[in-house]
Amino acid sequence: MSGWVTIAGLGPGAEAMVTPEVQTALADATDIVGYIPYVRRVQPRRGLTLHESDNRVELDRARHALQMAAEGKRVAVVSSGDPGVFAMASAVFEAVEEDAAWRNLDIRVLPGITAMLAAAAAAGAPLGHDFCAINLSDNLKPWDLIEKRLRLAAEADFAMAFYNPRSKARPEGFGRALDVLRSCCEAERLMIFARAVSTPDQALRVVHLADAAPDMADMRTLVLVGSSQTRLIPRDGTPFVYTPRSAP
Amino acid sequence: MSGWVTIAGLGPGAEAMVTPEVQTALADATDIVGYIPYVRRVQPRRGLTLHESDNRVELDRARHALQMAAEGKRVAVVSSGDPGVFAMASAVFEAVEEDAAWRNLDIRVLPGITAMLAAAAAAGAPLGHDFCAINLSDNLKPWDLIEKRLRLAAEADFAMAFYNPRSKARPEGFGRALDVLRSCCEAERLMIFARAVSTPDQALRVVHLADAAPDMADMRTLVLVGSSQTRLIPRDGTPFVYTPRSAP
Repeated sequence: MSGWVTIAGLGPGAEAMVTPEVQTALADATDIVGYIPYVRRVQPRRGLTLHESDNRVELDRARHALQMAAEGKRVAVVSSGDPGVFAMASAVFEAVEEDAAWRNLDIRVLPGITAMLAAAAAAGAPLGHDFCAINLSDNLKPWDLIEKRLRLAAEADFAMAFYNPRSKARPEGFGRALDVLRSCCEAERLMIFARAVSTPDQALRVVHLADAAPDMADMRTLVLVGSSQTRLIPRDGTPFVYTPRSAP
Repeated sequence: MSGWVTIAGLGPGAEAMVTPEVQTALADATDIVGYIPYVRRVQPRRGLTLHESDNRVELDRARHALQMAAEGKRVAVVSSGDPGVFAMASAVFEAVEEDAAWRNLDIRVLPGITAMLAAAAAAGAPLGHDFCAINLSDNLKPWDLIEKRLRLAAEADFAMAFYNPRSKARPEGFGRALDVLRSCCEAERLMIFARAVSTPDQALRVVHLADAAPDMADMRTLVLVGSSQTRLIPRDGTPFVYTPRSAP
């Protein structure tokens, strides 16, 4: 009976961005739990059981992982990116609170390369000064709170990273977020639409806020918004975008 | 003449958190450039020149790297954590802007595990909802801007990560930051002091804002502040701290 749960970050997509620590945990696990496309990134092998589940069942998935660990299994809950950033780690701890017997299980979170850092690296260094990360999905919080955070982030002159900007079930929110930004940022504010970063489908698009359109984002897109200080360096191909270290 | 510059993130300290992509870049480089303790994390080998430099000469170091790449060398600029988060990537792009000849060099940024994500993982999932990252050093920005951002971040109810909270040259700032937080957050607000995360010296301390003291932080400490929703799960040893996915 030496079960454990490890919530492991697989990074944004490229195998070369998966840390050795995470690879070791996957190799030691008896069970892999996660959303279907993430579980499919794990190589099947004898003695390893793969438990795929659909989106939006995070809490059930977390309970299942904890239950198996309590029975002595070595369970890796896999997330894309970093498990602590809009991913499975919080869901596991929400489940831990439900049952006192789960508190003293061996539970570890293994960080991964989260999408905003991979997207920023692909573009240059747009998050090189103070910044914030906002999940634009209003599935688990009121839209008014998202708008409030956008306004305050703009007032603080943070660069911003938007996770889950737009989905088929939420086609309107991102356009509203752009309207909020246009009401409080200059038209030339730099934005980066980074789709499927680090995968063969990677596509980067750098635009001014005035030219940003809702259909530039989908569920595979990470959106970055520069601060007022963010700069563009034209060059052959996609320009570099970076935020200087200093601010006036 | 196929020189390049790669700005590579070494992660917070543990070798098991260095991505294979970064390991490959270090293995292919002819020259390593960086702050002394980071360069010392790279294994010396025949054909590899190590260029150590002191803190606070980031722009000189960046120019040196670009100049060597222009001469055909394969240069890895090493940063701890992620190079795009309060590290060397922005300094390199600041230098790139100085000389048009440098714009079309092969320059890539390779992301790494940044300190706040390693610290969050060690504590649980305190950054599991919207959050911001603020560099508390006023070397390159006015202190008033830091205070403004702290107030707005608290109003937005972001969780917060503080980089460079305190140094021998800046002993006062962090105490002032705590005063700002106390003026706008409840006394029970959860804070995590994460020192030397992922190294043998790792030490985690979870306190309420009311009990936080300036000397709990030094230059090796990453400070996390929960949002109003952040929760503590008591258990044997260090408690878990996490922020739920949903917000009211």
